Amino acid sequence: RGGKRRQREELYQLSKASRLCVPAMNVNDSVTKQKFDNLYCCKESILDGLKRTTDVMFGGKQVVVCGYGEVGKGCCAALKALGAVVYVTEVDPICALQACMDGFRVTKLSETIRHIDMVVTCTGNKNVVGREHLDKMKNGCIVCNMGHSNTEIDLASLRTTELKWEHVRPQVDHIIWPDGKRIVLLAEGRLLNLSCSTVPSFVLSITATTQALALIELFNAPEGRYKQDVYLLPKKMDEYVASLHLATFDAHLTELTDDQAKYLGISKHGPFKPNYYRCRQTSPHTQNAHKHTDVSNRKYFF
Amino acid sequence: RGGKRRQREELYQLSKASRLCVPAMNVNDSVTKQKFDNLYCCKESILDGLKRTTDVMFGGKQVVVCGYGEVGKGCCAALKALGAVVYVTEVDPICALQACMDGFRVTKLSETIRHIDMVVTCTGNKNVVGREHLDKMKNGCIVCNMGHSNTEIDLASLRTTELKWEHVRPQVDHIIWPDGKRIVLLAEGRLLNLSCSTVPSFVLSITATTQALALIELFNAPEGRYKQDVYLLPKKMDEYVASLHLATFDAHLTELTDDQAKYLGISKHGPFKPNYYRCRQTSPHTQNAHKHTDVSNRKYFF
Amino acid sequence: RGGKRRQREELYQLSKASRLCVPAMNVNDSVTKQKFDNLYCCKESILDGLKRTTDVMFGGKQVVVCGYGEVGKGCCAALKALGAVVYVTEVDPICALQACMDGFRVTKLSETIRHIDMVVTCTGNKNVVGREHLDKMKNGCIVCNMGHSNTEIDLASLRTTELKWEHVRPQVDHIIWPDGKRIVLLAEGRLLNLSCSTVPSFVLSITATTQALALIELFNAPEGRYKQDVYLLPKKMDEYVASLHLATFDAHLTELTDDQAKYLGISKHGPFKPNYYRCRQTSPHTQNAHKHTDVSNRKYFF
Amino acid sequence: RGGKRRQREELYQLSKASRLCVPAMNVNDSVTKQKFDNLYCCKESILDGLKRTTDVMFGGKQVVVCGYGEVGKGCCAALKALGAVVYVTEVDPICALQACMDGFRVTKLSETIRHIDMVVTCTGNKNVVGREHLDKMKNGCIVCNMGHSNTEIDLASLRTTELKWEHVRPQVDHIIWPDGKRIVLLAEGRLLNLSCSTVPSFVLSITATTQALALIELFNAPEGRYKQDVYLLPKKMDEYVASLHLATFDAHLTELTDDQAKYLGISKHGPFKPNYYRCRQTSPHTQNAHKHTDVSNRKYFF
Repeated sequence: RGGKRRQREELYQLSKASRLCVPAMNVNDSVTKQKFDNLYCCKESILDGLKRTTDVMFGGKQVVVCGYGEVGKGCCAALKALGAVVYVTEVDPICALQACMDGFRVTKLSETIRHIDMVVTCTGNKNVVGREHLDKMKNGCIVCNMGHSNTEIDLASLRTTELKWEHVRPQVDHIIWPDGKRIVLLAEGRLLNLSCSTVPSFVLSITATTQALALIELFNAPEGRYKQDVYLLPKKMDEYVASLHLATFDAHLTELTDDQAKYLGISKHGPFKPNYYRCRQTSPHTQNAHKHTDVSNRKYFF
Repeated sequence: RGGKRRQREELYQLSKASRLCVPAMNVNDSVTKQKFDNLYCCKESILDGLKRTTDVMFGGKQVVVCGYGEVGKGCCAALKALGAVVYVTEVDPICALQACMDGFRVTKLSETIRHIDMVVTCTGNKNVVGREHLDKMKNGCIVCNMGHSNTEIDLASLRTTELKWEHVRPQVDHIIWPDGKRIVLLAEGRLLNLSCSTVPSFVLSITATTQALALIELFNAPEGRYKQDVYLLPKKMDEYVASLHLATFDAHLTELTDDQAKYLGISKHGPFKPNYYRCRQTSPHTQNAHKHTDVSNRKYFF
Repeated sequence: RGGKRRQREELYQLSKASRLCVPAMNVNDSVTKQKFDNLYCCKESILDGLKRTTDVMFGGKQVVVCGYGEVGKGCCAALKALGAVVYVTEVDPICALQACMDGFRVTKLSETIRHIDMVVTCTGNKNVVGREHLDKMKNGCIVCNMGHSNTEIDLASLRTTELKWEHVRPQVDHIIWPDGKRIVLLAEGRLLNLSCSTVPSFVLSITATTQALALIELFNAPEGRYKQDVYLLPKKMDEYVASLHLATFDAHLTELTDDQAKYLGISKHGPFKPNYYRCRQTSPHTQNAHKHTDVSNRKYFF
Repeated sequence: RGGKRRQREELYQLSKASRLCVPAMNVNDSVTKQKFDNLYCCKESILDGLKRTTDVMFGGKQVVVCGYGEVGKGCCAALKALGAVVYVTEVDPICALQACMDGFRVTKLSETIRHIDMVVTCTGNKNVVGREHLDKMKNGCIVCNMGHSNTEIDLASLRTTELKWEHVRPQVDHIIWPDGKRIVLLAEGRLLNLSCSTVPSFVLSITATTQALALIELFNAPEGRYKQDVYLLPKKMDEYVASLHLATFDAHLTELTDDQAKYLGISKHGPFKPNYYRCRQTSPHTQNAHKHTDVSNRKYFF
């Protein structure tokens, strides 16, 4: 996610500086791709990544998930379902309120750090877990990142002479304090789901289909439809990608009657949402939300 | 919800026709209010409304939920959690794919209608449950609406001479077929959560706070900040409403450090999302989404 | 449950004192009845009872459930599913360990009492919630009992001059402290599910079927099969009651092949469990477990 | 589990034949060990075993779990929580009724076999998945066993000339039909959780503690306390094992008051359950239940 965001960042900056020499399609913000890259993928891979690296038992474990965006929601749901006691940290009161309603205690990391068994970061922010927290953790605490490249855990603060690093297994380091306390760091703070888990082929299929459709559209588009700018995948194509993947689940869509379509003021065949409708960019991926999903200055074709 | 939507509809039409004589604030689309009006409220009231009217047992019951928007998601989550076997119907492939990933079979109503115990509509559409479905339901099937005013179940088709209506209890009618089959209709197809359940005071507090803040803003605003147009509640106020309600849950927000705020490119005190960021308008409330959440022509103040 | 237990108690005492003039069948300990009387019924009625009496919102509420037997397990599962943060108190380390593995923090009531929103008792014990706890509860805390007749909450300690009782609604009393603090007491400490909720007809059907089968058996039994003693419902009849109720769920049983039956050393048509196999009597219903489920001195017919 | 059961089997047979030369302690039937060997372990390892071998995505997958005993309950709970649509097969109507109430459709394997994505066996029976089922499965269906040694899937029927076996990866074989259809067989039908997952150290600790306590008791027991027979671990020791493991979860037990202990008719320090109280032997592990948990002829010391 971190990487994708940066690329998109540059794309929009080039565009703003009118230094884009060709039309570009931002496929990353399509709903289908977003949901699978974040909520669903993370819900599946958080458990997998932790098991493969540490064989930890989830039942009864106390876990802090930092950030309750789509990624955090996925991690919390999976961990809670397997019997973990999950706490959430948030900076955005709206996301915090959602965490409360979903049954998670919202606390500051410093309040829970002493008695927890695992910390999972998914904020998109930097230094969310700092040395002051790592010093307070109990022996054997597992620390991993599901969020933003490798900035969320302050690794620099751990690369000091008084702490001993022991590489116990691929993707697993023990960081040993002078008093013998060991913290279990996974993937050196890089994305757990990319480093220690796997991405289901179904998700790759969604990504590939989205990208292929975008290229086909750019290739087939009549002269002048696209200028040297960044475009969003048309809603209709987003829905098309989703519909192509429903067969896997033997899912049967309901068709609108003419009467119903008229009542809803849309076409029977979609799009069922307006073009600008996008997956929620959830806190605190705010930089990204701020700079990129400013719909008002985005272009669509019809 | 139906009512609110229509009012908003008219508001925007007046605005487009420049026949609005005063500035107006659309408080209904603030995230906090949306989430509580839809996802969370419905998750709580679907069980309550069904129990109070029918004393039905949820365990093992086969239920079809029509529509997997925020309302449908709330109903499905609650029913599944209490042991019901839930099927979903959808017209939008994106929402359908979400239902699949959340563990619900997506079918057409006609495919499951013969063996189900309850039908819950939450589509925002009309005549989702028609006479052709009602004729196929088994004896004792419960039919109710959580979605759009009273249009989702085709009541007209039930007001015919060959069907006998028996009012068994407030909000509960038995519709009796010539062969003696009885369908249990709740609240004559009006909103179950408004007719047969209650709205928690916490939700009323969120609504009232949002409205009060909007009025205060309009009253205190400097000359010329607002023209005769429709405005959205500023994101910062939305976040403020949420933060005021966190105390109920003894939730403690994390504060961004100066360094983190700078990294995210936002203020330490929010807004943590851009103004145009709104709660997902989920399918098939498309009419509404189409006509109203067109962010590009909305105005904000800063 | 409390009442049933006492009756059974007396029955076994009469039997031990050989003062039973007729054969008796203890239908209450059949698995099917037990599961529905405890786990499943309570899972459904805890939410219903609380909503009907207080219209409370479950999302984000902090709840303490006292006792993690079948009743407690049902209450915890339902409350957690609706978004409550649930804590468990237990005296039995085995039940406590189960609560931990199921994702609940196990604490003493005194540790959590100050910040909780609801207390639900299901221990089968007496004075589990005492005046010392009630004094520490915060304003508006809801107190109810799902466990044992009306002994679990120390009501006597509340019937004192300095506390004011206000009957706000059927089954709901406010107990007002001198400083104005109000505790919401439901059903004056009697069973919430019997006083403030309803029992699904499906459950009554299971009970009635079990009792009817027992009577038929006693009536048809050949001379001398039953002495003046207490007998348990034969396993096969218990299974028969269950099988009669599977149709409601359109459930299809698998039949053992001759080969499989031989391999398992049982009849193709059951019983699939030995007679002495009974539903878990879970802590701390220990008195009852102690005195009644002592299988070794029970009689069966074959 | 299969292995343990057979050993215990022999032990009781030796005892019955009075050919046991020393006292023996059956540690396997202690509640704590049973729950962790079955319900909790399987709940954690079913997902892990499937992910490590196949990287399968759980969301939306249709799975049949054969057998709804403790093992089946654990598998179903985990799979449902991760978004799978789970069907259950059962021979015992009581377990089937529980599956229904827990929200699972109870079907015959032959009814669902054509459209499912995975089959998990946990019956303790033999040939639950036969060639007639394997022939009907769709391409890519995953077949694995969580139940009884390696008897549940009829492997013999797959070792025929017309089917090609392809070993794609450790513990993963593709069985290829003449038409090219591939079935994914895990661990050649042996226990998935032992072959393809790991056992948490916490569980090993429970097992080791139980065994150690049993040996200490046998060693320290006064002359004559134990004859040449099979004994069950005293309830009090079972509770002691559990209490030793509560610290891991920072769980705090509640202590009975003298008054409460008197009311319950037990000691403040346990045992809180009678000796004969044992973990539910759930269907269809009936052979075992039948032959071994016949409490009436078991001996305890006090």
